[in-house]
Amino acid sequence: MERTLIKNVKPGTVCKIQGFVENFRNKRTMAFLVLRDLTGKMQVTIAKEEHPEMAEELDKITLESVVTVVGEVVANEYVKLNGIEVLPNELKVESVAEALPIQDDAAIDLKMDYRWLDLRSEKNQLMFKVQTLAMQSLRNFLIEKDFLEIHSPKLISTASESGSDVFEVKYFDTKAYLAQSPQFYKQMAMASGFERIFECGPVFRAEKSHTNKHATEFTGFDLEVSYINSYKDLMDLEAEMLTYMLKNIKDKYGDEILRLYDKEIVVPTLPFPTIKLADLYEELKTRYGYEIPAEEMGDLTTDAERLCKKFAQEKYGHQFLFVTDYSAEKRAFYHMRDEAGVPLGYDLIWNGVEITTGAQREHRYEKLKAQAQEKGLDRDVKHYLEFFKYGCPPHGGFGVGLDRLTMMIFDLSIKEVMFLFRGPNRLNP
Amino acid sequence: MERTLIKNVKPGTVCKIQGFVENFRNKRTMAFLVLRDLTGKMQVTIAKEEHPEMAEELDKITLESVVTVVGEVVANEYVKLNGIEVLPNELKVESVAEALPIQDDAAIDLKMDYRWLDLRSEKNQLMFKVQTLAMQSLRNFLIEKDFLEIHSPKLISTASESGSDVFEVKYFDTKAYLAQSPQFYKQMAMASGFERIFECGPVFRAEKSHTNKHATEFTGFDLEVSYINSYKDLMDLEAEMLTYMLKNIKDKYGDEILRLYDKEIVVPTLPFPTIKLADLYEELKTRYGYEIPAEEMGDLTTDAERLCKKFAQEKYGHQFLFVTDYSAEKRAFYHMRDEAGVPLGYDLIWNGVEITTGAQREHRYEKLKAQAQEKGLDRDVKHYLEFFKYGCPPHGGFGVGLDRLTMMIFDLSIKEVMFLFRGPNRLNP
Repeated sequence: MERTLIKNVKPGTVCKIQGFVENFRNKRTMAFLVLRDLTGKMQVTIAKEEHPEMAEELDKITLESVVTVVGEVVANEYVKLNGIEVLPNELKVESVAEALPIQDDAAIDLKMDYRWLDLRSEKNQLMFKVQTLAMQSLRNFLIEKDFLEIHSPKLISTASESGSDVFEVKYFDTKAYLAQSPQFYKQMAMASGFERIFECGPVFRAEKSHTNKHATEFTGFDLEVSYINSYKDLMDLEAEMLTYMLKNIKDKYGDEILRLYDKEIVVPTLPFPTIKLADLYEELKTRYGYEIPAEEMGDLTTDAERLCKKFAQEKYGHQFLFVTDYSAEKRAFYHMRDEAGVPLGYDLIWNGVEITTGAQREHRYEKLKAQAQEKGLDRDVKHYLEFFKYGCPPHGGFGVGLDRLTMMIFDLSIKEVMFLFRGPNRLNP
Repeated sequence: MERTLIKNVKPGTVCKIQGFVENFRNKRTMAFLVLRDLTGKMQVTIAKEEHPEMAEELDKITLESVVTVVGEVVANEYVKLNGIEVLPNELKVESVAEALPIQDDAAIDLKMDYRWLDLRSEKNQLMFKVQTLAMQSLRNFLIEKDFLEIHSPKLISTASESGSDVFEVKYFDTKAYLAQSPQFYKQMAMASGFERIFECGPVFRAEKSHTNKHATEFTGFDLEVSYINSYKDLMDLEAEMLTYMLKNIKDKYGDEILRLYDKEIVVPTLPFPTIKLADLYEELKTRYGYEIPAEEMGDLTTDAERLCKKFAQEKYGHQFLFVTDYSAEKRAFYHMRDEAGVPLGYDLIWNGVEITTGAQREHRYEKLKAQAQEKGLDRDVKHYLEFFKYGCPPHGGFGVGLDRLTMMIFDLSIKEVMFLFRGPNRLNP
């Protein structure tokens, strides 16, 4: 017999349901189970005298055991759950649960030791449904626009970009490193004439930081586009893409997110507001008395980032804010610069948290080499520079972290949104 | 002005096209370029006397340089390419190419040194369009069936499954390893009540093999399903999924694959033929005189695998063949076994190459522990066994390699189908 999902169970039918035991009361003549699957909960009621053959199975049942039930579905106005219950003809315990080692109120690190139990909650299951839709929305949006998907190697021969914060791998008789981002390879795809690509995959950062925003491994979503006219094309693309994603989420899960998280998904309006970094600092000073430390000039401080939430809301009535015109000193060597030396890129701030760095890239070999030299990186990026020697289209791109997006959607910490968090002290389970 | 893709260029319009210079003839009074983008090729014709301002740009042009052209599109019956050409008013060299270090007939390893140039060929670009569609088809097929997508960690604390062939990572003051598959974590998702999940991501194998089928890093596509009735549900799911994928590929790219690869995509019929291993060996013996070496009994040898192409075609008129009833000795400890001890799983052979191992998993803690002990693995998989202690639905799953699928579609080696191949001697670019 085929299984019926609990959300599809209808009175007047006979059906098979399967799930975890959320509640169990075993009385003298009656037994009551609440069964939970990914779609809902259902009461199962057993008149024990009518079913002596079930006694043995009933004796095995513990909370969170997994049970299969086949039975008649009947309406019963006294049953709180949906007003229906299942009266089983068959009952089978598929898997017996030991007493649970954690409770709902356990500390986050203990919950992470038993993440698979923690993930059983309705809230967490909703989070992964939303994450699945978020990722699929980003991909569909781009595939509709003829983007190609690439899978670039995570094992690389030289420490990418900077050399610090990179994990070293024993690779046969030599060493390899784990890619900190697909940056160089997505640019290689541009030199390959792929024109528009995206990649979704793990990125690795050997950072010993213990904030609620950082992990040593997380899921990046990166894209790169050839023949842009300017980085503003990327800002438009990103704003549209995120709006599309948030609209899908609100349409499909908006009500459930409100019910379980008491959080309203706001679909942003287009275009997103944009401000130059210097103007932003002026505004933050005038409005909130925020003075930027001299040594941080040209970059967005964490404090200023946080204030952007209030500022963007007050001035533009918006959750998102593009910030442009950073100083070249504070940006990666591969960002293209205008004639005045200002990098042609942006950060995107969502509710006071930076979620993206985007930029047009320098695609002209000689200029790129000079900019790498200026930062003392030309030897480290020797292989990368080769990509630009044999013709390369003008291009640019950006990346967002799937986990970071999930954090922002649900207002949670990184540890709470990852399937399995990885940090300096966390490699298990 | 917005760029027009070459496939969309129409006579009688003015448009901007951008691409690589595939061909260049610079005569005394005329210059001819063939420009190539991801969608096609276009002749660009310049009457030099009418455009003295273009002289400087024309002098820069080399083969594979990247050029932007704005001009009038006119019909010209003497132009071989589509019978149209562009007469530019503007011409800009975006990126100058040095003389190319490889030619079309270069050896595979030299091509791989300059993979970004190799990838510019029409054949390779088609391959990545097909790969993008293949992956999107697999995902869409499952998301339609309410599968969730997970992203499990690649950094793990203990060498998974076997301990051999695993890469070691320096992880702060301790060691980590790179996951050889998401096997344990996709099963964890079942213990989390996620019911149906898939994951697409890199898997790492520290194998020092130099076959044309193996890489040290490749892209896996893995799924796991709760509440299956038997592994036959998985076989049906996989057959349907691959058929859906191949139909999409044939519909969208069948003609181009035929034109560029001289290869016909065959959409398989459902259900796929199935045979027990012992029966298969009988058939191979009777038909082709193949005798299996005694020590290989219970498993499918590489030679037998290859013969399956001929056999499946002859007996069933099919490219695919499910083989079941392997011996427990030759299968992973986590495969569920029937009462006679036969593993409840299968391999799927496509044109003589194994592309999948699938199985129902043992979800009962005590039995699973015993099976791990039997293979001497119980200490290695201590953390994994924990997933089954607190209730776990019956479940099963399988995995396919995206690169392996691409190899089969195009009849190419692993080095030819990967964006960037990784092998024991290959970490660059």
